[in-house]
Amino acid sequence: MSDTVFQKIQLVGTSNKSFSDAAANAVARAHQLGHQVSWFEVNEQRGAVRDGKIDQFQVTITVGCRVQ
Amino acid sequence: MSDTVFQKIQLVGTSNKSFSDAAANAVARAHQLGHQVSWFEVNEQRGAVRDGKIDQFQVTITVGCRVQ
Amino acid sequence: MSDTVFQKIQLVGTSNKSFSDAAANAVARAHQLGHQVSWFEVNEQRGAVRDGKIDQFQVTITVGCRVQ
Amino acid sequence: MSDTVFQKIQLVGTSNKSFSDAAANAVARAHQLGHQVSWFEVNEQRGAVRDGKIDQFQVTITVGCRVQ
Amino acid sequence: MSDTVFQKIQLVGTSNKSFSDAAANAVARAHQLGHQVSWFEVNEQRGAVRDGKIDQFQVTITVGCRVQ
Amino acid sequence: MSDTVFQKIQLVGTSNKSFSDAAANAVARAHQLGHQVSWFEVNEQRGAVRDGKIDQFQVTITVGCRVQ
Amino acid sequence: MSDTVFQKIQLVGTSNKSFSDAAANAVARAHQLGHQVSWFEVNEQRGAVRDGKIDQFQVTITVGCRVQ
Amino acid sequence: MSDTVFQKIQLVGTSNKSFSDAAANAVARAHQLGHQVSWFEVNEQRGAVRDGKIDQFQVTITVGCRVQ
Amino acid sequence: MSDTVFQKIQLVGTSNKSFSDAAANAVARAHQLGHQVSWFEVNEQRGAVRDGKIDQFQVTITVGCRVQ
Amino acid sequence: MSDTVFQKIQLVGTSNKSFSDAAANAVARAHQLGHQVSWFEVNEQRGAVRDGKIDQFQVTITVGCRVQ
Amino acid sequence: MSDTVFQKIQLVGTSNKSFSDAAANAVARAHQLGHQVSWFEVNEQRGAVRDGKIDQFQVTITVGCRVQ
Amino acid sequence: MSDTVFQKIQLVGTSNKSFSDAAANAVARAHQLGHQVSWFEVNEQRGAVRDGKIDQFQVTITVGCRVQ
Repeated sequence: MSDTVFQKIQLVGTSNKSFSDAAANAVARAHQLGHQVSWFEVNEQRGAVRDGKIDQFQVTITVGCRVQ
Repeated sequence: MSDTVFQKIQLVGTSNKSFSDAAANAVARAHQLGHQVSWFEVNEQRGAVRDGKIDQFQVTITVGCRVQ
Repeated sequence: MSDTVFQKIQLVGTSNKSFSDAAANAVARAHQLGHQVSWFEVNEQRGAVRDGKIDQFQVTITVGCRVQ
Repeated sequence: MSDTVFQKIQLVGTSNKSFSDAAANAVARAHQLGHQVSWFEVNEQRGAVRDGKIDQFQVTITVGCRVQ
Repeated sequence: MSDTVFQKIQLVGTSNKSFSDAAANAVARAHQLGHQVSWFEVNEQRGAVRDGKIDQFQVTITVGCRVQ
Repeated sequence: MSDTVFQKIQLVGTSNKSFSDAAANAVARAHQLGHQVSWFEVNEQRGAVRDGKIDQFQVTITVGCRVQ
Repeated sequence: MSDTVFQKIQLVGTSNKSFSDAAANAVARAHQLGHQVSWFEVNEQRGAVRDGKIDQFQVTITVGCRVQ
Repeated sequence: MSDTVFQKIQLVGTSNKSFSDAAANAVARAHQLGHQVSWFEVNEQRGAVRDGKIDQFQVTITVGCRVQ
Repeated sequence: MSDTVFQKIQLVGTSNKSFSDAAANAVARAHQLGHQVSWFEVNEQRGAVRDGKIDQFQVTITVGCRVQ
Repeated sequence: MSDTVFQKIQLVGTSNKSFSDAAANAVARAHQLGHQVSWFEVNEQRGAVRDGKIDQFQVTITVGCRVQ
Repeated sequence: MSDTVFQKIQLVGTSNKSFSDAAANAVARAHQLGHQVSWFEVNEQRGAVRDGKIDQFQVTITVGCRVQ
Repeated sequence: MSDTVFQKIQLVGTSNKSFSDAAANAVARAHQLGHQVSWFEVNEQRGAVRDGKIDQFQVTITVGCRVQ
C-alpha cells in the first residue's frame, strides 16, 4: 500500500566556525524550505583560506527527504 | 532552435518485494509529481533486515526528466 | 548571521555543435527557470552517433545555485 | 548513555536462482552465525556462466551488525 | 606450460522483463558469437521509462571469455 | 621472522555530539572487544535529522588491528 | 522477440586540433571497421606536450555498437 | 592577458586535538612556505590509536595556491 | 540445497622483501587462524621508506573465505 | 643506466574562452616555471557562471614533467 | 594526415609464478592474436589460494593496440 | 608544540626490470632531490610493450615527505 519514496537533494552549507556548523546550516535551510529531511550524507569538505587561515568551511551534503 | 535539457533527480524507492519493485515505485512517484521521466539509472541497492530476513528493499536511482 | 547555502542541481545539456554549447544550454536553462547559478561542474560527456559521425553532444553538469 | 556501534561484515552469497536469493542466503548465514544484522548493502553482482547460460548468481554484500 | 588468458568484453543487454533477463540475453549473444564465456560482472543498471513505467531494462555487463 | 599482519575491521560509530565522538566510540568498542587497534580511517560521514536538526552523527571507519 | 544487445568498445582517438576532433576520429574509425556505432562516452582526456604547447590531443572513448 | 593559474599541493596535517586543527596546521605551513593558499579540499581523514583512544588526527588536504 | 557463502576479510601484510611476499604473509596468517581462504584481491600497495630506500612493503588484500 | 623519473604536478588553468584554452594556459605556465612538461591529463572541468552565461572555464590538469 | 587510433582490450593473464608473469602472458597472447600492442595498464590483481598458499596469480590488464 | 606536516609528491618511476625497481627508482630520486621521504603509495602500474614483450615498467607513486 505505502512504499515510501525519498528524494536526495545535494546542498553546500557554509560556516566560518566548523564543518559541522556548515552541515547544520544546510540541513536547517532544507527544513525551512519545507523538505522533510530524514538523514544527510557528507560528500565533500573544502574551504576558503585567507592569510594562511581557514576563512570559511564549505561542506557538500546530500539530504534524504520524504516525498509526500 | 531546440536543444533539449534534462534534469537528473535522485530518489530512493522502497519495497518489501524486490529491488525492481522499489525502482518502479520511485519512477512512478516522480511521474505522479509531474516530471517527464525518460530514463533511470540504478545508483545503490541496500535493504533493511529483520530476524535474518530481508525486510525492505531500498534502491537509490537517478531519473532523467525532460525540462519543459 | 548569514551563512550562504547552495543547492547543486544536475542537468544534461545537448547540442549538435559541441560539448561547450551543450553545457551552456544547460546553464542557460537553469537560469531561465529562476535559479541563481554561480558555478557548474562537468560530470559526464557522451553523445549520439549516426553514420559514423557525432550527431549530438550530451553533457551532464552540476550547477551550484544560491538558495534564497 | 549508550551510543550504538555496528560492525560491517562483507559476504558473498551464491544462488542458482537469482541475485536476490544469493543476497538472502548471505544475510541468513550471518544471522545463523549469531550476528544481529540490521541492514545490508549490495557491493558487487557477478556470476558463473556455463554453455551460454547463467549458472550461478554471486552477490557481494556488506551487512551491518549491532555490536553488543 | 599453459597459463590461461581471458578476454573481458563489455556488453549491454536489454529486456522488457527484468535486469536478470537483460543480462542473460547479453551472455547468450556472446555465446552465439562463439565466445567461451566463463563468468560475467554487472557494471551498470539503467532503463527506459514511458508514462511513468519502466519500459526497458538495460544492463551493462562484462563477460570473461577464455582465449583459445 | 616476524612480518606483522593487520586486520582491517569496518565499524559504524554513532554519537549525538559530533563525528569525532562517534569515531572515538567505535575505536573504543573495538578496543573493548580485545582488538589491538593501531590506526583508523574515516570512510563515510552521515547522520540522522529530526525537525531540521542533526540528531545523530554516524561515522563509518576502518580500524587497523594487529593480528597476534 | 528480439532484445537488442550492444557491445562497448574502448578506443583512443588522437588529433593535433582538439579533443572533439580526436573523439570524432575514433568514432569514424570504428564506423570504417564495420561497427554500427550508436553512441559514445568520454572516459579520459590527455595529451602530449612539446615546448610548453599542447602537441596532440588524446581522448579515450567507449563506443556502443549494436551487435547483429 | 591574465588568466590565473593555480597549483594544487597535497599535504598531510597532524594534530592531537581534532581534524580541523590538523587541517589548519597544514594550511598554515603552506602559507609559511610562501604559497598563496586560496582554498583547500579534504581528501582523507585517518588517525593513530593508542590504548583504545585516538592519539593523533591525520588529515590529507589539497591546497590551491595562486601561481605568480 | 547448499548455496555456499563466503566472507571477505581485509588484511594488511608486510614484508621487507616484496609486495608478493607481503601478500603471501597475509594469506598464510589467515590460513593459520583457521580461515578457509579460496582467493585474494589486492586493494592497496604502499610501503615505508628509510634513507631513500624501500624499507617495508605493505599490501592490503581482501581474502575470500568459505563460511562453514 | 638511466631510468627516467617524472613528477606529476596538478594545476588549475582558467580562461574566459574555452576549456582547451584553460588547459593550454596551465601547460604554458608550467613550462615558463622551468618544468619539462611531457604530457598532461584532464582531471576536472568546471566554471564560473554569471547571468546565466559561462563566465570562466576552469580546468584541473596534471602535468607530467621529466625530473632532471 | 593520419591521426592514429588505438583500441583498448581488457585481458586477464594467469601464472603460478608472479603477477608480472601473468601480465607478460596476457601481453604475449594479444601479440600472438595479431594485435599491435603498444602499452598496457594494470587494472586488478587477484589470485587463487590453496592450503594457505598463493596458487595462481591473476592480473587484469588493458592493452592499447594500434588500429590499422 | 610541533604537529608534523607532510607533503605528498606524485612521481612516475620507470625500469626495464620490474615494477618494484621502478618504484625504488622514483623513491631514490625524491631522496636525491633532498626530500625526507617517509612512505610511498602505489597509484598506477602500466608499461610499454615492444614485439609482444614488456619493454618498460612504469609506476606512478605518491611519496610522503616530512616538511621541515
